[in-house]
Amino acid sequence: MKTRKRAEGQLVKSHREVLTFNIAARMDFLNITPQVEQAVAKSEVAEGLVLVNAMHITASVFINDDELGLHRDYKKWLEQLAPFDASPERYHHNRTGEDNADAHQKRQIMGREVVVAITDGKLDFGPWEQIFYGEFDGQRPKRVLVKVIGE
Amino acid sequence: MKTRKRAEGQLVKSHREVLTFNIAARMDFLNITPQVEQAVAKSEVAEGLVLVNAMHITASVFINDDELGLHRDYKKWLEQLAPFDASPERYHHNRTGEDNADAHQKRQIMGREVVVAITDGKLDFGPWEQIFYGEFDGQRPKRVLVKVIGE
Amino acid sequence: MKTRKRAEGQLVKSHREVLTFNIAARMDFLNITPQVEQAVAKSEVAEGLVLVNAMHITASVFINDDELGLHRDYKKWLEQLAPFDASPERYHHNRTGEDNADAHQKRQIMGREVVVAITDGKLDFGPWEQIFYGEFDGQRPKRVLVKVIGE
Repeated sequence: MKTRKRAEGQLVKSHREVLTFNIAARMDFLNITPQVEQAVAKSEVAEGLVLVNAMHITASVFINDDELGLHRDYKKWLEQLAPFDASPERYHHNRTGEDNADAHQKRQIMGREVVVAITDGKLDFGPWEQIFYGEFDGQRPKRVLVKVIGE
Repeated sequence: MKTRKRAEGQLVKSHREVLTFNIAARMDFLNITPQVEQAVAKSEVAEGLVLVNAMHITASVFINDDELGLHRDYKKWLEQLAPFDASPERYHHNRTGEDNADAHQKRQIMGREVVVAITDGKLDFGPWEQIFYGEFDGQRPKRVLVKVIGE
Repeated sequence: MKTRKRAEGQLVKSHREVLTFNIAARMDFLNITPQVEQAVAKSEVAEGLVLVNAMHITASVFINDDELGLHRDYKKWLEQLAPFDASPERYHHNRTGEDNADAHQKRQIMGREVVVAITDGKLDFGPWEQIFYGEFDGQRPKRVLVKVIGE
């Protein structure tokens, strides 16, 4: 167990950014780690937390590996768990005129948000952790919120 | 990318509330955004984070759309992924005398908690984001914790 | 609705620890609540949040019940949702020489992280909430990050 000296008695700072992504496919994953790193650098927070969340309810922010085969596996798997079907027969949500009920389900599997520790002004990550925007109803601009809090 | 002026050098505040819900059905979803908004207003936190979590392990707090067809789809989908079965044959957990093993699985799909940014004293939400209490073993009073931290 | 007096106008503190676990099985769950409680005690944070996350992308940190039958049910269920298969036919990820594509999927169901409220210097938990490390590709040392922030 590795312990780090406690930072004590500092004033609190916060920082907010909105990132916008327009994914060409209906479903795809984009590595947004560089943009989150930039927001954390701008915040000048040394010790704290950063929340990164999809502002839309058919999209995810999640942390996993930047490996294309894995992403292909995720897409196939999510399609099996919650198949796209625009018809109103399978999904009641699609009786509203929407065709994206499947996207709302895929997003629950992959999650809305991540919270990442900031240590010494940097994302405190394991060796393979990368932050992804997960799109399940794309082909239009959608937003991700980055909120930093700490000292 | 829209950047917001950084709040800097403030003292930290916190606030805690416990909400209690008694859902009439075994499984149902309740929009609790108004209660969370009230807790945030009472906290007088302008910039920070609010954690909202189920205090019970057969319930969820999640963010999605307030649309009844979608909720109906979620219930059907969760029942397919983790069917209710009180017998001890399908679920070992039900050998303890419980009948809610399925509820523990449904809660893992939908999640325990959400963390939401607070900006200018308000929940910093996209256009359709609403906070739901998700009940998978209802018909009794259960609690949700709201914890606000910020400045 | 139970409300707690707001803590106001304090300086912010943070604390960081890394826990290391070496799970004997490929998939298993370990109750790490005592280690997280110790980290919170060391932080001397009275009111705040603690983030506990897997630093590896084939592992989870989640909150549920410490009941062996339930854990057995989770393992069986996760194996159904994302079966282990080392071959490169089912999973593209395994064409990289890895055999753990299933572990990346299981971790998405169970989640990467939990955020827990700290109130009066303690984990603010419901009656049955316990924190687990969830391993899906074990038999080697892997790390969990504990980051405390508050006052």
